[in-house]
Amino acid sequence: MSRVAVIGAGAVGCYYGARLAEAGHEVHFLMRRDFEAVRRDGLHILSKDGDVHLARPDVAREPSAIGPADWVLCALKATAVEEARALVAPCVGPSTRILVLMNGLGLEDRFAAWFGAERVFGGLAFTCINRGEPGVVHHIDYGPVTIGHLLDDPGEVDIALALWAGAKVETVRAPSLLAGRWTKLCWNIPFNGLAVTAGGITTDRVLADPALRASVTALILEVAAAGNADLAAHGGTARLDGEATARNMVAATEAMAAYRPSTMIDFVEGRPMEVAAIFEEPLRRASALGVATPLLSMLTGQMRSLDARARVS
Amino acid sequence: MSRVAVIGAGAVGCYYGARLAEAGHEVHFLMRRDFEAVRRDGLHILSKDGDVHLARPDVAREPSAIGPADWVLCALKATAVEEARALVAPCVGPSTRILVLMNGLGLEDRFAAWFGAERVFGGLAFTCINRGEPGVVHHIDYGPVTIGHLLDDPGEVDIALALWAGAKVETVRAPSLLAGRWTKLCWNIPFNGLAVTAGGITTDRVLADPALRASVTALILEVAAAGNADLAAHGGTARLDGEATARNMVAATEAMAAYRPSTMIDFVEGRPMEVAAIFEEPLRRASALGVATPLLSMLTGQMRSLDARARVS
Repeated sequence: MSRVAVIGAGAVGCYYGARLAEAGHEVHFLMRRDFEAVRRDGLHILSKDGDVHLARPDVAREPSAIGPADWVLCALKATAVEEARALVAPCVGPSTRILVLMNGLGLEDRFAAWFGAERVFGGLAFTCINRGEPGVVHHIDYGPVTIGHLLDDPGEVDIALALWAGAKVETVRAPSLLAGRWTKLCWNIPFNGLAVTAGGITTDRVLADPALRASVTALILEVAAAGNADLAAHGGTARLDGEATARNMVAATEAMAAYRPSTMIDFVEGRPMEVAAIFEEPLRRASALGVATPLLSMLTGQMRSLDARARVS
Repeated sequence: MSRVAVIGAGAVGCYYGARLAEAGHEVHFLMRRDFEAVRRDGLHILSKDGDVHLARPDVAREPSAIGPADWVLCALKATAVEEARALVAPCVGPSTRILVLMNGLGLEDRFAAWFGAERVFGGLAFTCINRGEPGVVHHIDYGPVTIGHLLDDPGEVDIALALWAGAKVETVRAPSLLAGRWTKLCWNIPFNGLAVTAGGITTDRVLADPALRASVTALILEVAAAGNADLAAHGGTARLDGEATARNMVAATEAMAAYRPSTMIDFVEGRPMEVAAIFEEPLRRASALGVATPLLSMLTGQMRSLDARARVS
């Protein structure tokens, strides 16, 4: 059994941390908003895969109260990446591994600069999950986590997958973490972006509008092209199939209930959005590599402007 | 001197109607919101080209109180096009001419179906103009009106230009009304659309964001390509130069003060937006003609969704 520190106990951190605790791991949650509620009533996961109730989870307000762990699951919002180093560092000892369970591109590189690349992993959660009232998380649909190692070391990925072996979480090996990140962006860029810029709508309404639906596919093709250029620039052999990715993601999203992407929830609630990691960094790489991404460019400009308004008001 | 009925006395109708009254024409204004204020205090135009105060303009609540005119200036919002026939008809006699001073594509065709193509003209106001308190209009910048005849009859355009000869309004002849309409869309689609979808921002802030600025040019190129296909399909010889149009419109907009496009004002005030005439009809024609307009398509989907929300709330 491993000692696990969950840093950033939002919906994703609580859900996956609870699944590890359910499997017998010693899980510590760093909590802010929900600290009192979870101390009082425990942590409730209402899940389509079976509910979990942790009656007395170990919760801390400060990472120093957790200390070094075997695994750090960092599930902060990408908007909080500047705070991540200080929050994660107290939990990192000589043999700690770090799973970056966040949205967006380039975040693992930050962790590598701080803590060393060999211990950094990326986790890509394809899941419909939202926070409820304090201490309650709603797991609505899907749930697999794709896991890769920043240096794509297969033995290290084996170790990461072993952590989840007894947990009620489907895991998928990412032979190329970078390819996995770009694949995830193929969903987040169109669906998070259009759900916000069309006024804060659910994914089913994005797909119901013929022009927005066509834009989903066109955006995925742009993102896949940018991703393939980025993968080639990094010397890897993995490539994305844009057409197949578009077909699969539209079909998978169509099968969801009316879903509110996390960025859309941030938007309607007036919180900062993950614009830098999900939109600006992919656009920056596409531009640097000479890949034309006019739709991504427009969407990024719209998102940046909407985010600036939210930060002002 | 001509008898002129201004139907739809918003900012544009009041401004251009007042300029005709100032030149000595007999101008009647159909008014709703501002009727009482204008009866009491007159109509105030605060203009960078010199203020106008009409102390006792002829205002009516019903078009039947105006009756047949030499010219109808229809300056309704495009969202009110379904009401236009009933509002204009009482002012149309055997020799009445109609100047459609509205935004968007295809509106003159509606008037032609109702009243006959030979009497229908289009006016394209390139101006920064906003309503102030009731009875007050702020004319901020620019002001020329490009005028064309629906059948592109040069003699008819002469007659239209003659109406404005003594007025303090610069007029420009449109040898092709359709080319004029598409040229106007080259401004309205990017600037109205991005000002709205980026959260209700002014044109200077659209141009200040590098991604949105690039999107302005890319959208203009799409609109010009669609316009040229539409012009070819209509058998005309006029064509738009997309690159030059983009350069000129960006430069002209850069020279404006922080400007709030009318659609952006409608958006932030929760009113219906001119989505059908400015976005959907151009996209429909582009699609029918096989012209790829991915940015226009995404923007149209976003605008349609935002507009639906405004109509619900």
